[in-house]
Amino acid sequence: MHLYIGLVHYPVYNKNSDIIASAVTTLDLHDISRVARTYDAKKFFVVTPLEDQQELVGRVKKHWVEGHGARYNEHRKSAIELVSVTPSVEAAKTVISESEGEDPLVIATDASKTEGRAISYEKARELLQKSGRAVFIIFGTAWGLDRDTISRADYSLDPVYGKTDYNHLSVRAAAAIIMDRLVGRENEVVG
Amino acid sequence: MHLYIGLVHYPVYNKNSDIIASAVTTLDLHDISRVARTYDAKKFFVVTPLEDQQELVGRVKKHWVEGHGARYNEHRKSAIELVSVTPSVEAAKTVISESEGEDPLVIATDASKTEGRAISYEKARELLQKSGRAVFIIFGTAWGLDRDTISRADYSLDPVYGKTDYNHLSVRAAAAIIMDRLVGRENEVVG
Repeated sequence: MHLYIGLVHYPVYNKNSDIIASAVTTLDLHDISRVARTYDAKKFFVVTPLEDQQELVGRVKKHWVEGHGARYNEHRKSAIELVSVTPSVEAAKTVISESEGEDPLVIATDASKTEGRAISYEKARELLQKSGRAVFIIFGTAWGLDRDTISRADYSLDPVYGKTDYNHLSVRAAAAIIMDRLVGRENEVVG
Repeated sequence: MHLYIGLVHYPVYNKNSDIIASAVTTLDLHDISRVARTYDAKKFFVVTPLEDQQELVGRVKKHWVEGHGARYNEHRKSAIELVSVTPSVEAAKTVISESEGEDPLVIATDASKTEGRAISYEKARELLQKSGRAVFIIFGTAWGLDRDTISRADYSLDPVYGKTDYNHLSVRAAAAIIMDRLVGRENEVVG
């Protein structure tokens, strides 16, 4: 399995459907890096073109990997180590391509499911667990990934529904659930 | 299905295995209430005996249910409405019993799996989806629920494992994954 996760802060929508660059939330870094570590992702890309935000991510990473935090909590260290900052989804793809020797398949997540080539959890599971291809799953912050980014991805994953029609989970919760559905031990593709 | 969720701030462990009352994190209220709403829980109990913390939860709830927040974001409103503050797990059980006419089955979650009567996800799914019994699932903040609380529960749920042996998810991520495993549409118990 060659799994990569990306948390995109630009281009995403705000409440009024304008395209914005959202602020990095440090809790997202911790929660999603621990999810990445749990589900054996190779890297967790934090995507933002804003230099001050890139620096913030760098400082958080340094604190937990090299600084006082590393001694305080090694579980956080082994998760935050997976974080890598890139200015764009394209730049993250380039890093993955250089490491894997091929372009990754990009799967966009989309709570509103308006664009892109839809893929079910079952199909995405097979792709990830059986195809041998590198897969890059991207999550949007704020009100979600912009439509062009979703259209440019290879696939768009079905929204997360639970038991109701409510699908307004935080990106932290959605990322956790999606990773569990795609690569959790209970969801291993056999045969 | 008669599902209730509890987020316990006392009694839980700190890093040194002392029993403490942890502070309420407002983001937990938002993330986990949205998970509760997604998976059709009837209530989301925030358990803390500390009066200032109870007041904090009350203020957050009021803001999003009645105040400016209710107009700003109705998705948050319909989630936060599920929040109910109680001083203890026992007090939450009493509220559930009064509403359901029977005591709920309590399932404790435990990343370290040291105590209690173990239950698999498959069994817990059946219990929740088929038995007709009210089920109260409790999550510990900080370093987890104290052993006595776990021992007093009817069952202790298997820890969440992903693809690795790392099981240090945030309580927000763990609650999301556990709810999806127990009541997500992909995990419906048929027949």
